[in-house]
Amino acid sequence: MANWIWYPGDFEIYHGMKQNYDREERGFFWPAYWHMSDWRHHLRFRAVFCLERQEVIRVAAKGRGYVNVKYRQTPPPWMKQDEEYWSETKYPIGKDIVCQPGDMMVEAVVGNMEGLPCICVTGDTIVSDGTWLVWDFASEEVSAGWNGMYVRPEQNPMEFEYTSQVLQPKEVGEVNGGLLFDFGREVTAETVITFPEDVRDVTLCYGESRQEALDTEFCYLKQELKAGQPGPDGGEMEELFGRFETEGTYHTRLRAFRYIFVPGTEAASGLQIRADHKFVDFPRRSSFTCGDERINKIWEVSEETFRLASGIFFLDGIKRDRWIWSGDAYQSYFINRYVSFDKEICKRTILALKGNDPVVQHINTILDYSMYWVISLEDYFEMTGDDAFLKMIYPKMESMMNYLMEQLDENGFIYGRPGDWVYIDWADLDKEGTLCAEQMLLARSYQAAARVREILGIDGQEYLERFQKLKKNICTYFWDEEKGAYIDSYVSGRRHVTRHANIFAVLFGYTDDDETESIVKNVLLNDEVDAITTPYFKFYELEVLASLGYFDRVMETMKDYWGGMLDRGADTFWEEFKPDQPEEEQYSMYGDKYGKSLCHAWGASPIYLIGRYFMGVRPVTPAYASFEVKPQLGQFERFECTFPVGEGSVWMRYENGILKVKADRPGGVLKAGQDSYELEADKELVIVEERGSDQR
Amino acid sequence: MANWIWYPGDFEIYHGMKQNYDREERGFFWPAYWHMSDWRHHLRFRAVFCLERQEVIRVAAKGRGYVNVKYRQTPPPWMKQDEEYWSETKYPIGKDIVCQPGDMMVEAVVGNMEGLPCICVTGDTIVSDGTWLVWDFASEEVSAGWNGMYVRPEQNPMEFEYTSQVLQPKEVGEVNGGLLFDFGREVTAETVITFPEDVRDVTLCYGESRQEALDTEFCYLKQELKAGQPGPDGGEMEELFGRFETEGTYHTRLRAFRYIFVPGTEAASGLQIRADHKFVDFPRRSSFTCGDERINKIWEVSEETFRLASGIFFLDGIKRDRWIWSGDAYQSYFINRYVSFDKEICKRTILALKGNDPVVQHINTILDYSMYWVISLEDYFEMTGDDAFLKMIYPKMESMMNYLMEQLDENGFIYGRPGDWVYIDWADLDKEGTLCAEQMLLARSYQAAARVREILGIDGQEYLERFQKLKKNICTYFWDEEKGAYIDSYVSGRRHVTRHANIFAVLFGYTDDDETESIVKNVLLNDEVDAITTPYFKFYELEVLASLGYFDRVMETMKDYWGGMLDRGADTFWEEFKPDQPEEEQYSMYGDKYGKSLCHAWGASPIYLIGRYFMGVRPVTPAYASFEVKPQLGQFERFECTFPVGEGSVWMRYENGILKVKADRPGGVLKAGQDSYELEADKELVIVEERGSDQR
Repeated sequence: MANWIWYPGDFEIYHGMKQNYDREERGFFWPAYWHMSDWRHHLRFRAVFCLERQEVIRVAAKGRGYVNVKYRQTPPPWMKQDEEYWSETKYPIGKDIVCQPGDMMVEAVVGNMEGLPCICVTGDTIVSDGTWLVWDFASEEVSAGWNGMYVRPEQNPMEFEYTSQVLQPKEVGEVNGGLLFDFGREVTAETVITFPEDVRDVTLCYGESRQEALDTEFCYLKQELKAGQPGPDGGEMEELFGRFETEGTYHTRLRAFRYIFVPGTEAASGLQIRADHKFVDFPRRSSFTCGDERINKIWEVSEETFRLASGIFFLDGIKRDRWIWSGDAYQSYFINRYVSFDKEICKRTILALKGNDPVVQHINTILDYSMYWVISLEDYFEMTGDDAFLKMIYPKMESMMNYLMEQLDENGFIYGRPGDWVYIDWADLDKEGTLCAEQMLLARSYQAAARVREILGIDGQEYLERFQKLKKNICTYFWDEEKGAYIDSYVSGRRHVTRHANIFAVLFGYTDDDETESIVKNVLLNDEVDAITTPYFKFYELEVLASLGYFDRVMETMKDYWGGMLDRGADTFWEEFKPDQPEEEQYSMYGDKYGKSLCHAWGASPIYLIGRYFMGVRPVTPAYASFEVKPQLGQFERFECTFPVGEGSVWMRYENGILKVKADRPGGVLKAGQDSYELEADKELVIVEERGSDQR
Repeated sequence: MANWIWYPGDFEIYHGMKQNYDREERGFFWPAYWHMSDWRHHLRFRAVFCLERQEVIRVAAKGRGYVNVKYRQTPPPWMKQDEEYWSETKYPIGKDIVCQPGDMMVEAVVGNMEGLPCICVTGDTIVSDGTWLVWDFASEEVSAGWNGMYVRPEQNPMEFEYTSQVLQPKEVGEVNGGLLFDFGREVTAETVITFPEDVRDVTLCYGESRQEALDTEFCYLKQELKAGQPGPDGGEMEELFGRFETEGTYHTRLRAFRYIFVPGTEAASGLQIRADHKFVDFPRRSSFTCGDERINKIWEVSEETFRLASGIFFLDGIKRDRWIWSGDAYQSYFINRYVSFDKEICKRTILALKGNDPVVQHINTILDYSMYWVISLEDYFEMTGDDAFLKMIYPKMESMMNYLMEQLDENGFIYGRPGDWVYIDWADLDKEGTLCAEQMLLARSYQAAARVREILGIDGQEYLERFQKLKKNICTYFWDEEKGAYIDSYVSGRRHVTRHANIFAVLFGYTDDDETESIVKNVLLNDEVDAITTPYFKFYELEVLASLGYFDRVMETMKDYWGGMLDRGADTFWEEFKPDQPEEEQYSMYGDKYGKSLCHAWGASPIYLIGRYFMGVRPVTPAYASFEVKPQLGQFERFECTFPVGEGSVWMRYENGILKVKADRPGGVLKAGQDSYELEADKELVIVEERGSDQR
């Protein structure tokens, strides 16, 4: 089978730029404010074949260029006789080419100024695929990039092929002298408006919430239409927002919403709006239900949130800002393991985030986000065992590591330079001097980089030594014996303690038992230390608590915090939730009345907490060759669930003190209470248990 | 007046890539085979204003983004009171924006995946121009790029605006059972074909020569058309070659030709073809005629050749290969001084050749071509005195110098690495080890780089020291006392002498009088040393001979060599001419029967030789603030000429031993025989002379 092929990583860079240019707000576009590296525009593809019989091939391409068919010849006398010598004939792209038997080579040179240069070669035996080599006329020739989506010459790799689902509004009501269309759930959709004969002007006010849609002045997405005409100014710019398919049918660009309000119209007018929902139909490889309906609802809404935010790439929020953020994506990689276990979206996101070398800026301008990116490579391998991908991306990892190591102080601590954003979280961190939490991430990055090298058979010692030295210095400079915790900064003298660095320290296993105990007591369970307010960092806080066995507390927090959003009518989880915030302000953020994203990937972490800790499903060795299942039976009266374990699945049901477990692949171990049981493939294991759990 | 603005240098990189993708051959495209760096796709433009009264502005842009209007505010208490603090409001692109009086800033953020991000801001006092700052979200903010061509919002900087001239064929004749259209001169034109009712199939066979057009099998440019239909395969690829304007009218892409042959058609059919010639209408700022009609014809054909090869950029050949070559362009910079003295095409070409940093490859992959590029910066300044341009391009010069200095051996000699093309000329040079001619160019590059630094007030000492050291080593290693000449290589032991290094040595002033004498005797006037066969290197050979006063010989060579092409029917000058080549093979090159370019910029050097040496017009100080005119009266019975001297012109007439000279600007000195005369502005100087010349 033929594949479309391109320069490895450039498909993702191309679509990444498209994605980062996709944010719309109140009639204008807002391209992401960081440097975006470009894909290559000019390539040579080639592959060698030994044809047994004549064959007709055709090269489809995006761009302009030619095909060069070469045949091996015995070198002429004036050449070294051991040198390769090929005859060559050039042909146009897109036409039949008759290839003759023998040792031959097919080369295609393609330049594409506007888009992604790529080719698809189809013949009986000559087809383009990942075994072809590609050259950018400067650096070393490498293996071509490809993916499973583009396998037919008629396809266009510059168009991502979404699944499309046309939705009619669930409910249309007359409100405030206008029509409110409620599609019953949040969608990312192109809107199709059909104008009645006598309606000329239509204003679309979109809302993730009903309140937003009805707020015609401040709603985030809004468009004014005149039947049959482009907008007031016409021209290029207007076309970016949509087009008239016919006099009376307007088709908008992709937007995220649940509600659309059209002021000054009534039901009688006959105005119709439908939504053409575009999404990637990831397989549903997990399920979870238990005796507690609130938890079931939290699971359901988390999955809905996560699926909406997963497309070509892992996005942060589907209305705002539709950009690709490394910190948000990092958590999505983990959640993804417990939903559809899709490798492709991980690879696409990792490649789009990194862009091309040289590194000229931190990913999303954020220091910590560059480090999450490095760490994600090791995690991706643990999930998939895909060393081919590591091999491909390895040079980019090293260039990122070098970029990080260019900004270390004499203690090996990483600091922010002008233009670097030292973020960690929306929280009151003492950022004077170097910041402890950043050092934790750097230490973890050294470990990840060393591991990646080992996997590829390259010596990782250098990074391990740097890790040891850094870990020691972190203790020396940031550990406060008196407070029994890590402080943000040792420079300011304020010796301020926040949860963040301490969470990382325990999570990454940088603390001994006493230090852990101390951090739990003085920080994690200490209400005097500022609470985490973002679901983003709640992810790490609850993970560390779960990993320490504080299941009651984690369960309680899930019910209060995520449940709290449900009580506010959330049908997807939000970017931020402050329980004490009055309802009328609950959608505001960044000084914008509707600035808060109501469908935000990092809101979906309960899936991870439940799958990884309450159900205890995790890989022990890469790609789940061996894996562990360790359900917290004490937390549930009953539950039933399925989770991916690599290419296979594990199923559990628990009821009336009886646990049934079955995996369709070998390598599994069940841990219940203090006991361990081998899981044989396709063999149901039944355990009648005397209640036990690791609850502290 | 408003200008369209972009990232400095990126307009030229964008159009440079377009140009280098423009080569067509036998139904396919042939993008240049070197790495082409990309323009930036994502920018922020801004400028600060102090508005006295309210003003409405509009921002036109290519790409998507927004406008941000900011007003200076007193900082809030929590900020340092000396920090800048601005309120901000975002607006769509392309719509009216009302700006209020006061200290304010206009920012525009534009992303453009497919093309060049650029803006044009129009208001009463707020207009976009070179004073605006532009930022690529990574490197330092710089002054915006612009040029005089794009000053209206309706314009599109991605479309270069050519002058257009519709030409009917001068002659249409029936030959070989087909129709031959002769347009009387070579043109770069879109061809418009009007199909008669009953003609369905038309094959266009183009030719720079009559022979090529009539050779339906091997002609270089050929297209088959079916009335009313795209080509056999239809689709994207076909559209690149042209389009049907109506059922019966086809409009081709731009092609270079004088003849078009349509086989199997007769005059009666009524088939019509016209040519829409596209060119840049550079001013005609020079003229030359003398008593010798052959020289006049050579001048005329040289100018025709040069004008055809000068468009957005200086091209090498207009049929083949339409690419931008640094070595060819370098000679065009000099010829340009004696034709239209256009600064803009020099700047465009210099910027397009260099591309963006980092340097990843030599310009056109050729070692010597990177060095010509560096040297051209000093020459450009000598011609124009334009230090603003040097300031803008300076960082790119340094990165190029660093790239060159990365490949020096222990003697400071530059060598070719794998992938580097060590060219110099189509000649039999001994390229084992380092090559002498390349070292001459490196020495010259050090001098140029030092000079550029001095002009910008930066210390150039480092480069001057490198120059001295290198010059010494060149003598030590490459000067052969016995042969009294420079040898190509000291490594091979062959001690082979070619003209090239010796020409550079004298031309660059690296020889003392004895060495010069020796080189003249042993190389330049020694017929046993291989003759130069390309007009390309004839440029340097004849220049050095002229500079030494061998005017008879130079004149003779011009008449034989360029005159020889005229005798072969040339109406433009060729890429290569071998007087002994039989007529039927005279158009072949690179193993292609019509591979030779018949209109090639480097063929136009007689203009430079006449202007610079026979008429002796040259700048003494930058921008011709002071200049010299030194006609070789002994070579002519009579002549009349005009040449640019910076912004001004100098006119001369010589007849019956009386020389009249007049310049419209001060600073000129006339040298005739042994005497010097001040040239006052607009005052005619008349000299009745006793024959004298510097002829040796």
